[in-house]
Amino acid sequence: MTGSIFGEAFRLSTFGESHGGGVGVVIDGCPPLVPLTEADVQEDLDRRRPGQSSIVTPRKEADEVEILSGTYEGKTLGSPIAMLVRNKDARSSAYDEMAIKYRPSHADYTYDAKYGTRNPNGGGRSSARETIGRVAAGAVAKQVIRTIFAPELEIVPYVASIGELDANVDQATVTQELVESNMVRVGDPEMVEPMIELIKATRADGNSIGGTVGCVIRNVPAGLGMPVFDRLEADLAKAMLSLPATKGFEVGSGFAGTRMTGREHNDEFEMNDGTVRTRTNRSGGVQGGISNGENIYFRVAFKPTATIMSEQHTVDNEGNDTVLKGKGRHDACVLPRAVPMVESMAALVLVDHFLRQRALVGEA
Amino acid sequence: MTGSIFGEAFRLSTFGESHGGGVGVVIDGCPPLVPLTEADVQEDLDRRRPGQSSIVTPRKEADEVEILSGTYEGKTLGSPIAMLVRNKDARSSAYDEMAIKYRPSHADYTYDAKYGTRNPNGGGRSSARETIGRVAAGAVAKQVIRTIFAPELEIVPYVASIGELDANVDQATVTQELVESNMVRVGDPEMVEPMIELIKATRADGNSIGGTVGCVIRNVPAGLGMPVFDRLEADLAKAMLSLPATKGFEVGSGFAGTRMTGREHNDEFEMNDGTVRTRTNRSGGVQGGISNGENIYFRVAFKPTATIMSEQHTVDNEGNDTVLKGKGRHDACVLPRAVPMVESMAALVLVDHFLRQRALVGEA
Amino acid sequence: MTGSIFGEAFRLSTFGESHGGGVGVVIDGCPPLVPLTEADVQEDLDRRRPGQSSIVTPRKEADEVEILSGTYEGKTLGSPIAMLVRNKDARSSAYDEMAIKYRPSHADYTYDAKYGTRNPNGGGRSSARETIGRVAAGAVAKQVIRTIFAPELEIVPYVASIGELDANVDQATVTQELVESNMVRVGDPEMVEPMIELIKATRADGNSIGGTVGCVIRNVPAGLGMPVFDRLEADLAKAMLSLPATKGFEVGSGFAGTRMTGREHNDEFEMNDGTVRTRTNRSGGVQGGISNGENIYFRVAFKPTATIMSEQHTVDNEGNDTVLKGKGRHDACVLPRAVPMVESMAALVLVDHFLRQRALVGEA
Amino acid sequence: MTGSIFGEAFRLSTFGESHGGGVGVVIDGCPPLVPLTEADVQEDLDRRRPGQSSIVTPRKEADEVEILSGTYEGKTLGSPIAMLVRNKDARSSAYDEMAIKYRPSHADYTYDAKYGTRNPNGGGRSSARETIGRVAAGAVAKQVIRTIFAPELEIVPYVASIGELDANVDQATVTQELVESNMVRVGDPEMVEPMIELIKATRADGNSIGGTVGCVIRNVPAGLGMPVFDRLEADLAKAMLSLPATKGFEVGSGFAGTRMTGREHNDEFEMNDGTVRTRTNRSGGVQGGISNGENIYFRVAFKPTATIMSEQHTVDNEGNDTVLKGKGRHDACVLPRAVPMVESMAALVLVDHFLRQRALVGEA
Repeated sequence: MTGSIFGEAFRLSTFGESHGGGVGVVIDGCPPLVPLTEADVQEDLDRRRPGQSSIVTPRKEADEVEILSGTYEGKTLGSPIAMLVRNKDARSSAYDEMAIKYRPSHADYTYDAKYGTRNPNGGGRSSARETIGRVAAGAVAKQVIRTIFAPELEIVPYVASIGELDANVDQATVTQELVESNMVRVGDPEMVEPMIELIKATRADGNSIGGTVGCVIRNVPAGLGMPVFDRLEADLAKAMLSLPATKGFEVGSGFAGTRMTGREHNDEFEMNDGTVRTRTNRSGGVQGGISNGENIYFRVAFKPTATIMSEQHTVDNEGNDTVLKGKGRHDACVLPRAVPMVESMAALVLVDHFLRQRALVGEA
Repeated sequence: MTGSIFGEAFRLSTFGESHGGGVGVVIDGCPPLVPLTEADVQEDLDRRRPGQSSIVTPRKEADEVEILSGTYEGKTLGSPIAMLVRNKDARSSAYDEMAIKYRPSHADYTYDAKYGTRNPNGGGRSSARETIGRVAAGAVAKQVIRTIFAPELEIVPYVASIGELDANVDQATVTQELVESNMVRVGDPEMVEPMIELIKATRADGNSIGGTVGCVIRNVPAGLGMPVFDRLEADLAKAMLSLPATKGFEVGSGFAGTRMTGREHNDEFEMNDGTVRTRTNRSGGVQGGISNGENIYFRVAFKPTATIMSEQHTVDNEGNDTVLKGKGRHDACVLPRAVPMVESMAALVLVDHFLRQRALVGEA
Repeated sequence: MTGSIFGEAFRLSTFGESHGGGVGVVIDGCPPLVPLTEADVQEDLDRRRPGQSSIVTPRKEADEVEILSGTYEGKTLGSPIAMLVRNKDARSSAYDEMAIKYRPSHADYTYDAKYGTRNPNGGGRSSARETIGRVAAGAVAKQVIRTIFAPELEIVPYVASIGELDANVDQATVTQELVESNMVRVGDPEMVEPMIELIKATRADGNSIGGTVGCVIRNVPAGLGMPVFDRLEADLAKAMLSLPATKGFEVGSGFAGTRMTGREHNDEFEMNDGTVRTRTNRSGGVQGGISNGENIYFRVAFKPTATIMSEQHTVDNEGNDTVLKGKGRHDACVLPRAVPMVESMAALVLVDHFLRQRALVGEA
Repeated sequence: MTGSIFGEAFRLSTFGESHGGGVGVVIDGCPPLVPLTEADVQEDLDRRRPGQSSIVTPRKEADEVEILSGTYEGKTLGSPIAMLVRNKDARSSAYDEMAIKYRPSHADYTYDAKYGTRNPNGGGRSSARETIGRVAAGAVAKQVIRTIFAPELEIVPYVASIGELDANVDQATVTQELVESNMVRVGDPEMVEPMIELIKATRADGNSIGGTVGCVIRNVPAGLGMPVFDRLEADLAKAMLSLPATKGFEVGSGFAGTRMTGREHNDEFEMNDGTVRTRTNRSGGVQGGISNGENIYFRVAFKPTATIMSEQHTVDNEGNDTVLKGKGRHDACVLPRAVPMVESMAALVLVDHFLRQRALVGEA
């Protein structure tokens, strides 16, 4: 209803603008006795923070997390887990102009249209800093999945394309180690250098570039997901499209599958070591909204960063035509930092469905 | 939480399997004094029902709706609106074999894996009949939008592609009249005949074919949609991916936009007759999750129908490898009937956000 | 949000006015494989329907239930369970006057104030017929508790007082058999005749009378209920106060306990056959919002029936002072029929918390 | 679902144990442009904090609030409002014994039974410190009501009884000024001294005492509250029973009304200056779950404080019988500090229904 709450059984409420006291999240519904320390969360926050490599924004944000509640002696209590990351809040004069001119393809205008007000510093609630709460909650979700439900489950997101550069990734074998071993977080070693070059050249040109993140989830038990509205892929789609800068989602065969016939597309079943398996996996691991035990895989589209270092036409908040040129330090390509965000949202969807399945049938 | 409930402020709860007493929906949260009769709902149900043309399944299902509650003298009361469509329930012997053999790329196996049981007749809850409740609710949603919030708002969904055949549709001008004037519901008159031929040839071959539905929503006020998790496009994505046979969703520039640079992609603002407008619309009418007053447009991927009249490998519910050949009367292509479903889900998302915006700021 | 939906994990959506197609309920979130037939539900509906004895309203309402969906071969499927009871809908001319004059202490005026409209026949949504959906859902809830969670759990509601007549009920031993063996449903055999006399005399006088329902729940496992907002007693309080004509709720020592000191009131713990037990039970089976394994008991206040066969001052819907005298056949005392309603709401709260506890810790 | 989230349209998520980083709340759904500073919130927190007078616990807790997000230049943004109060976290050795022995009539045992773990310091989540988040949110709710919906609306809670001492309070005229002018917060000047004496004598005896809080809400518009499950009085009942130490709730005539006849109890309508009014107000301002414009009044039962300075029998967490004597500084009577808690919960229920009514009909 209110927009900043996600999940049904594992429910998070995020808060915070880019400027102000801080950003964070409260998780309600986390099972008790799950090992959890600030280090578990910090690791993921470090993967999403600015300044971590030479191809992301050089802004310095330490993003140190404090767990305010919900744990005791390194384990969850079953009570709400509140986590806070302070803002440094050194208000940049780069935002003075943006306070009155609407940045093209940003949310400045729509926030004003919706609320009649906004925090003009750094994008306020539409800032990428908002994703800190999600990533922190995703780290907890992964702990819950790992320790209670599915120790073998692996979520492996990776950069699949940047601009016209397409990576060649084998979903069966790509590992998080491979992905995290390069600063682009691409799942294809051959593409590391070309993509770094592309991002650097784009930035040098004062421009930005889009791309896609792929994600494979392995060792998912069959039976997760609710029929009808809360299909697993529907909840994943919502989760991914709720990330900033996203424009599309496809699961399994996706848009390409629409060009196939049923005879080509159907995944035939067969028995394999006593387990029901499919010979192919165009379904992407979900059938009728429910996981079938095969790998879940999907792809998310990210548009090019809206802030560019070039002059563009725009209007101000008093209705005058004007021009604006981006200032400050921004990602020329959000893809490397989007990888942990996709992972977090996937973990949040999964843990919610694990808990829901346990409510319904007693195990998951 | 429970899977068959959708919406926050305009909340529907659908019910019903393909066999049993009937299918339907209860809507809670509909404003009072909205004109509503069974004829308003029946019109949309007729657009989704089988047997309506020579290219959809010839099954005879009248799908007559009864409004059980929530209206008085042709207007809504503000109380729950329950609507029921009876099943004919002539159990087909076509389902005998399917009761024990899992149909490839259907939900038979995943329902068994999730629940340990299922209604083996006609797909049970995963049947396309389940969408009757959504379409009935969507008809009410459209009445609410039309009479309370935005009389000028138009939702125009259309078939955008079938297999390799791509329609050429002008989002600015395509009308529901044009779309409904042909049995394919394609938004491009040139493509009507080729698509009909393709569907007929596919069916004659015992095969099926996928496609995409495009949808444009015009005259949407700026300010709809909640930041962060309940972005308008996130809720649309979830709504569309909750429809049977869907595999993807993209809004605005979508996946194609990921190949562009920021300079190419950004929508510059300009004043136009005193209104803030964008010169281009790669955002697809939403920025930061909130409508900006431009046309909202998106595209939904539908896989080829899973039931085909060809023998396929599968397993039975006792774990034996076997073969299965589709029987009965099924759509070789779901696209024409998917058009009103997409429209309904779009209307349901919009009406929910109109009501939520009204709660938050007093008007929408 | 929308008012006619109850529960989180076992969620019901009720619908229907006293006149119109019918009343009923959709349950979403019911676990699969629970035995359920129409007979299970009908039994409870028969306990709440009019005309069942000489001290309740003599209106003839058969209230036959049809299960429209969600079961197969006598067991639940895990999909939504829709149940419908048709209205007879013989519109009584008794309602002609009530359509324009606001009945004192009824909801006619407040519905008009809220919605600007209402169904003037028989109270519309505020009619006691609305409770049919709750009682039907409660019957399902009891089946779920009995077959999955706590076969020994007993919910025993009873009439505890009518007017000034107080029953003497032993919570440890009172049985549903005893309660159902008399038409008042009082938990004290000595009070059956006096209460019947009181009700008959009150009715003969064209008047009505209030009373209280007590309820004891035995064999509840420890651990049910969520801290803070969704305390077990808070959810019970809401459930009971949502019943028509209720004005109060107390659990354990209740209002009388406010006059005690801590030394008198505290329930000391002791070990008993290896189990933690309390020596007394002023807590009423809940501590900190969570069941402690002792008997849960509470009491609900019902005001006298608002419709009386005497002339009263009122106003009409055009703002004129006038008078109104009740017509038709109404309960002079709602208490006997309130007993199954209280039982249903208690079962609905419990089943919801059983499922929530199972989500959180894996069993309940 | 998850227990620490309250409200539908104005939704709060509270967090924090008595020991750990802090306690607080995130509010999602607060309308934009409402004046709000930390001073507005601090004022109410000061009314609930320990150490404020000679009859409450002398513990020193400054309870200073920090608004972390959701405001800009003294006004709300429409984004989540996070508020944090730090714990001092000087872990008292008084809790050493309580870590292993279950305090009678506390939540120690039930938390262990539910979660298999708990924070043994100071009651953890069941501590009265948890109410800080509610009171902070309640302060925001009051600002919203005052500035957007009903400037004249007054919520006046007061101590109505302590032990056997009953105050004589006139609901029509009692003011917050009167209530706040005495440290008991009793609504009857004659009872100030006797109640202070009773509390002091009870404390001197190492004992505790219960009581009731009454509350009147004046100038409520007609039309608030949803029929059926979310009746205004049902939501108030849940809100009040969710407060620590509560055992009962009654609205209007309450339990006393159950002894009346309909002729005595009914509130006749009459026109008064063009407005529909009732001649009496036994309904307590709600009919059919919806406000009728008259004063809403209710009463809440608080049991005696469980912690007493006397030795009591109990068991430890290894299942041994033992004894325990309370240590530390505790309220001998929670009533004075309960007054702002009741006020906050009432404000939270009202603001939620104002927003819901605005969603449904466009104004409230």
